[in-house]
Amino acid sequence: MTDRQPATDLHRALRDRGATLAVAESLTGGLLSVALVNVPGASATYRGGVVAYATELKAALLGVDEGLLAVEGPVHPVVARQMAEGVRRQLGSTYGLATTGVAGPEEQGGRPVGTVHLGWAGPDGAGMESLHLSGTRETIQQDTVGAALRLMLGHVAR
Amino acid sequence: MTDRQPATDLHRALRDRGATLAVAESLTGGLLSVALVNVPGASATYRGGVVAYATELKAALLGVDEGLLAVEGPVHPVVARQMAEGVRRQLGSTYGLATTGVAGPEEQGGRPVGTVHLGWAGPDGAGMESLHLSGTRETIQQDTVGAALRLMLGHVAR
Repeated sequence: MTDRQPATDLHRALRDRGATLAVAESLTGGLLSVALVNVPGASATYRGGVVAYATELKAALLGVDEGLLAVEGPVHPVVARQMAEGVRRQLGSTYGLATTGVAGPEEQGGRPVGTVHLGWAGPDGAGMESLHLSGTRETIQQDTVGAALRLMLGHVAR
Repeated sequence: MTDRQPATDLHRALRDRGATLAVAESLTGGLLSVALVNVPGASATYRGGVVAYATELKAALLGVDEGLLAVEGPVHPVVARQMAEGVRRQLGSTYGLATTGVAGPEEQGGRPVGTVHLGWAGPDGAGMESLHLSGTRETIQQDTVGAALRLMLGHVAR
């Protein structure tokens, strides 16, 4: 399982600010949610999440732009940002955090394995971060979870 | 991690029938989704899921009856069934599968640790199953995932 420290640090930073978090996941498939739930007392800050595994659910559940999905596919930094904005809005949380990318073993729509985009949204704005990870499907998923938690912590704790 | 066989069997049964699945999770926090995503070729049958960790999200995202939640709380067999019906409807899948319960370490609203309710919904109806599990938070969560996958397989494969 993923190292618990990033999730613990994020939980504490959210709690200190009376803030809450919701997540939207694609390539991590629920692992980001599991990392957050495994922190004792998680229910004080973690509201829940959406696993939008099928591409069209990113539009239907999270409000990601259908034209963008049609042109760029689901593995795109703006899709990650819109997923974060959408889950924040749908679940009524202070912050939203999202993952999209290619865990492998096969490439997806011309995007190589290890292409990962993270999105975040909060009261002060929204943004995205892109990574190129190497490793197995499992390590790419776990490294994505760690990177997403650290990205969110950087924006909550600043 | 959870044994992969139940998820593999369920994926195969769904694929043979051209059917899809969506999940709604509470006490498992994303683990059920992770078990399904870890099966190779999962995207053919698995549409996605909702982690409704905060109680009010069970009503807002999944359409669980607010009166029922107010009277019984989130750990109730009819809540599990309504979560399954709601996620099937919201995500447009052939089947819906849901978990609610108390993973511990503390009891919740008078429900002892290990109280677990599973819900399922499909073209032929909907239902629920209740369990009393013992163990740690982690084993209760993992045993819930295994029981949910077997429950769904029994209804898809019959």
